[in-house]
Amino acid sequence: MTQTQTTPPAAGPDFRSDNVGAAAPEIIAALARANADTATGYGGDTWSQALQTRFSEIFEAKVSVFAVATGTAANALSMAAITPSWGAAFCHERAHILTSEVNAAGFFSGGGLIVTVPGPHGKVDPAALDATIAAQGKGMMHRSQPASVNLVQATDLGAVYTVDEVRAVTEVAKRHGLKVHMDGARFANAVAHLGCSPADLTSRAGVDILSFGMTKNGGLLCDAIVVFDEAVARTIAWQIRRAGHVWSKGRFAAAQLLAYVEDDLWLRNARRSNALARRFDTGLRAIPGAGLWAPIEANEIFLRTDPRTMDALERAGIRFVRRSADMARFVCRFDGTEAEIDALLAALATGASHG
Amino acid sequence: MTQTQTTPPAAGPDFRSDNVGAAAPEIIAALARANADTATGYGGDTWSQALQTRFSEIFEAKVSVFAVATGTAANALSMAAITPSWGAAFCHERAHILTSEVNAAGFFSGGGLIVTVPGPHGKVDPAALDATIAAQGKGMMHRSQPASVNLVQATDLGAVYTVDEVRAVTEVAKRHGLKVHMDGARFANAVAHLGCSPADLTSRAGVDILSFGMTKNGGLLCDAIVVFDEAVARTIAWQIRRAGHVWSKGRFAAAQLLAYVEDDLWLRNARRSNALARRFDTGLRAIPGAGLWAPIEANEIFLRTDPRTMDALERAGIRFVRRSADMARFVCRFDGTEAEIDALLAALATGASHG
Amino acid sequence: MTQTQTTPPAAGPDFRSDNVGAAAPEIIAALARANADTATGYGGDTWSQALQTRFSEIFEAKVSVFAVATGTAANALSMAAITPSWGAAFCHERAHILTSEVNAAGFFSGGGLIVTVPGPHGKVDPAALDATIAAQGKGMMHRSQPASVNLVQATDLGAVYTVDEVRAVTEVAKRHGLKVHMDGARFANAVAHLGCSPADLTSRAGVDILSFGMTKNGGLLCDAIVVFDEAVARTIAWQIRRAGHVWSKGRFAAAQLLAYVEDDLWLRNARRSNALARRFDTGLRAIPGAGLWAPIEANEIFLRTDPRTMDALERAGIRFVRRSADMARFVCRFDGTEAEIDALLAALATGASHG
Amino acid sequence: MTQTQTTPPAAGPDFRSDNVGAAAPEIIAALARANADTATGYGGDTWSQALQTRFSEIFEAKVSVFAVATGTAANALSMAAITPSWGAAFCHERAHILTSEVNAAGFFSGGGLIVTVPGPHGKVDPAALDATIAAQGKGMMHRSQPASVNLVQATDLGAVYTVDEVRAVTEVAKRHGLKVHMDGARFANAVAHLGCSPADLTSRAGVDILSFGMTKNGGLLCDAIVVFDEAVARTIAWQIRRAGHVWSKGRFAAAQLLAYVEDDLWLRNARRSNALARRFDTGLRAIPGAGLWAPIEANEIFLRTDPRTMDALERAGIRFVRRSADMARFVCRFDGTEAEIDALLAALATGASHG
Repeated sequence: MTQTQTTPPAAGPDFRSDNVGAAAPEIIAALARANADTATGYGGDTWSQALQTRFSEIFEAKVSVFAVATGTAANALSMAAITPSWGAAFCHERAHILTSEVNAAGFFSGGGLIVTVPGPHGKVDPAALDATIAAQGKGMMHRSQPASVNLVQATDLGAVYTVDEVRAVTEVAKRHGLKVHMDGARFANAVAHLGCSPADLTSRAGVDILSFGMTKNGGLLCDAIVVFDEAVARTIAWQIRRAGHVWSKGRFAAAQLLAYVEDDLWLRNARRSNALARRFDTGLRAIPGAGLWAPIEANEIFLRTDPRTMDALERAGIRFVRRSADMARFVCRFDGTEAEIDALLAALATGASHG
Repeated sequence: MTQTQTTPPAAGPDFRSDNVGAAAPEIIAALARANADTATGYGGDTWSQALQTRFSEIFEAKVSVFAVATGTAANALSMAAITPSWGAAFCHERAHILTSEVNAAGFFSGGGLIVTVPGPHGKVDPAALDATIAAQGKGMMHRSQPASVNLVQATDLGAVYTVDEVRAVTEVAKRHGLKVHMDGARFANAVAHLGCSPADLTSRAGVDILSFGMTKNGGLLCDAIVVFDEAVARTIAWQIRRAGHVWSKGRFAAAQLLAYVEDDLWLRNARRSNALARRFDTGLRAIPGAGLWAPIEANEIFLRTDPRTMDALERAGIRFVRRSADMARFVCRFDGTEAEIDALLAALATGASHG
Repeated sequence: MTQTQTTPPAAGPDFRSDNVGAAAPEIIAALARANADTATGYGGDTWSQALQTRFSEIFEAKVSVFAVATGTAANALSMAAITPSWGAAFCHERAHILTSEVNAAGFFSGGGLIVTVPGPHGKVDPAALDATIAAQGKGMMHRSQPASVNLVQATDLGAVYTVDEVRAVTEVAKRHGLKVHMDGARFANAVAHLGCSPADLTSRAGVDILSFGMTKNGGLLCDAIVVFDEAVARTIAWQIRRAGHVWSKGRFAAAQLLAYVEDDLWLRNARRSNALARRFDTGLRAIPGAGLWAPIEANEIFLRTDPRTMDALERAGIRFVRRSADMARFVCRFDGTEAEIDALLAALATGASHG
Repeated sequence: MTQTQTTPPAAGPDFRSDNVGAAAPEIIAALARANADTATGYGGDTWSQALQTRFSEIFEAKVSVFAVATGTAANALSMAAITPSWGAAFCHERAHILTSEVNAAGFFSGGGLIVTVPGPHGKVDPAALDATIAAQGKGMMHRSQPASVNLVQATDLGAVYTVDEVRAVTEVAKRHGLKVHMDGARFANAVAHLGCSPADLTSRAGVDILSFGMTKNGGLLCDAIVVFDEAVARTIAWQIRRAGHVWSKGRFAAAQLLAYVEDDLWLRNARRSNALARRFDTGLRAIPGAGLWAPIEANEIFLRTDPRTMDALERAGIRFVRRSADMARFVCRFDGTEAEIDALLAALATGASHG
């Protein structure tokens, strides 16, 4: 089996992904602090209980929080909780659940169908969603029944849905009776970019269930599912347990998540990686011929370029991901440096052809 | 949803489970050490690569190791890898996959049937297994087809299969063409008890795939699947990825597992919890009327007792699990103390009726 | 792959199953009658519409009827409609869904767990059911959640639940919040035996969904699912369609079912096979040493006997099924004859040892 | 739930589908003939045995034949037999398994992903298939693994793959290590059109498993799966049984299929419906402005037209299916008439605008 991050690990600036980065020292420290005495297993510990309270404060409503191992687990279990096995789930044609998770959503839902919707910059277009849901054939016996919508925030091209844009999508979904999942692998980056409240961007905007990412932004081994819809919360616990995503030593997951939101660590980290991406954005304007696939609004950069330029970058020691012949992806890490950005800009300015 | 560890968390000796215990400081330290520089994601890092080598040394053969979040994930993904959706899996009637995992094995295998086999002390009886497999109806069109056997080591009553006992079961399995999974949630305790080589107890004894437990014996958030059978290894990777059990920051999982086997930490920890259980065993002989459900061979104690005695223990501040009206479970932790054992013995000597 | 009806096909009396019998001529005739003009596909035809009306009359309430190919399809789709993938379904330890359907219920429900309940003569014992549901651990995170109960009418030992007996089981189920499926592969035989109304034996007695068997009692290639619970009816249609059990030429299925209930054909046929079984029952009393596993109340006979007697019967040309060393099954067909019964009795009287 | 054949059933020419047609009298007669004596159940009867022999003659190789209730069952079970739950199945973007079967293939395979391939006239384009398989990421851990290809013969636009065209697709599939399923819902029409041998069009052309349609061409309630690949044949039987698609009175399915191929009934029927479609094709040339979505090579006609024309046709009493604003589908039945064709042509000539 091949890895997807194929750039050879070298010493140069590393933009392969935010998940190649380190963990936040605050989170490592929280693990050490939690490591005393005994604690009830499987989420019965005080950290896991505090997690419910703390996240309910952050989201300004009673929510149910479930720590799970990965973003794929968070996404697939969330989608399965709102998509019956005869249901259809709608997502952007570049959505992570479709392109990068071995159809985990299809597996966990027992055969739910994923239907794609176009839209600019990785965002589901509300009108296209409306038409696609309508075309799916609600009530028609031969068709998987429309059940759910998946939004990725920030998107798979690095853009950020505004609160109004989220609302526009969820309104279409609700009108057709569908539930809405937000894949927030980079939710912190989106919130940091918008400066809005987490509640405004999710439950108040019509989101029923959220994958709350931590790994890419300073966590180690843990993301979370935040459930806003009470009916979903009632049954998802067994689906998560059965998926092998309830840790017996749950305190070590909850402690990570608590440290992650303590003193706004999550937003501070996100602001750092976002700022690095903006620094790149600014620098890029001075480079003639360079282009972007989408505006830089979070911590990801999707450069519209060519193989010759990508070769040149690699020769300069820049590590990144070649998505296609004309798309190179660079991700800024919370623990990245301005020097890395500047090295990237220099390499682009020097060696790039920008066909 | 209710927790299963219902004893109220108090200050007394805590025998509710080994998973209520702390993490080994060596493993916490390893996490901190791994937290530098960037590392390729999804198992492409150097820790994950070293893990393959190190475990191949331990098991004296080329093995494939996959870190996963929990023992349930390790068990269910292992069983699914050797049980087709029309297959039957055979396990002891007290096996964890049957009693405590929300039928995760049935879910991941797409509907595989679990068939129970009796046997003393939680061990699958080879003759009973032979008869049960035969009765399942190999080749009969109406019956789920015999596919796999699950052994729990140490067993769900705290006993340990000897190498010969493992072999006796796997020989029956192989004769019928079935593959064998060992649920080694307490594999370290079994190896420590037997003083044998890990290879003798697994691949050389006919085991095809192993759940290698770490959490209960000093880990935080990670167990592993060790695959001995090459055909299984070829396809299980996608099943694990799709289950959301491949961490992007895989170094933090691999580093835990490497620290766990470094300088035999796993065996040293297991010897400590085993020794505590033996200390109890010795002390118990002085208490008239006390009985056990199975010999104490690892770190679990299944006391044959009565509700009045259990009430008395709880009043004495002892924390444990009531399994039934006549079964109380006590688990010794690697970070438990002799004082806890002595307190338990004293409470039993004083207040117990041992009906 | 081996067949289960292993007795070599010969010319003698044939008690191997009611499914070895012919189709009712009335039903063949109905197929021929339906074979004119064009008809809307997939259940939009007038026969399929009439079926809804006709069955609603028979069951004295608005029901939804779905023709499916087999009893296994009817059972598995019914159970899946009332058992989520994290649910537990309770059935008798001899239930057909457990012993003879390759765990189709587990497959269609996406991994639902089947839990067995004892009881005399193949009937679920209400008190045992109560205890088994309670022991399954409602609300406990590690346990498949109690969801549904399966009753077989007539039972897998040939007995018939009275209306009160059905009620006693469904009352336990309802008290725990479970839904109830009746596997009515031999529903006609049960109704004929009891002389009650179909409604009294099902919806009025707490049954939510019924497998309405036709094949064993004169049909060709079609059984039905009758849904009493409206919430279930709303989603089961897609599950049936997706299972490949909605015929495009649905008129040929509906026409069979309409002919089956026309002029009480279903009850007339059932009375004939029941009467043959009763004739055997009467005759058996004259044979010393003979015993039964359950009272003969429908068209099946489960003889408590021995291998020597079974050998003798086979030598006499009697065709039947050896269930175990001490259980021989004989099924009376609607198209069977009194001569066949008498030949069986004679063979038993002559050659049997009845150990 | 809504039906898809929405045109109100009236007295006019009926082109809604071939499945609105009657059954062949020869097949009804075969059912009546098979209705004598008892017969071993579940495919152990002499008809089912003869079916294996007869189809092995027709396909000039030892094949395994399984009668199933519907084409959806045949397709989904076939695809599931060659697609693991972590696999990707490739089909044309108009393929029936994608558009009209509630994702049954995804369900039966346990979450297999369906990936679409473009191509003219509903045919998978070999070069596009090659590129799409390559892009799916064989060996990449985040991607469903390429497993199978689905061809529809005749296609979902009514065209027919030649033997060479089938080969061109299967060669791409084989080069990538994929297995090939042919959805032969209208296989008879394709064979009749090409005048080739069934073997040349399937196993000799690289097809591993075939859905052999009968319902649309004169059957009642039965299609078949023909397995050419021995490894697939070894396990598919349990999957079919578990799907509820093995009839206990299997003789009534096998007898239909035997009658269907007796004296080339299947080809004679197909030639009749094909000829009706050709009659239309010829007539259409005289109508100015009329266009087709694909050449008429089997018994389906996909007219490129407009809503005004479709309204006019409906007013003229023509029954057909509106696929979209510019696509009207007309299917010729084996029991259709030249008068129906002529009425359709007349209605088109008179009222049509052919925008």
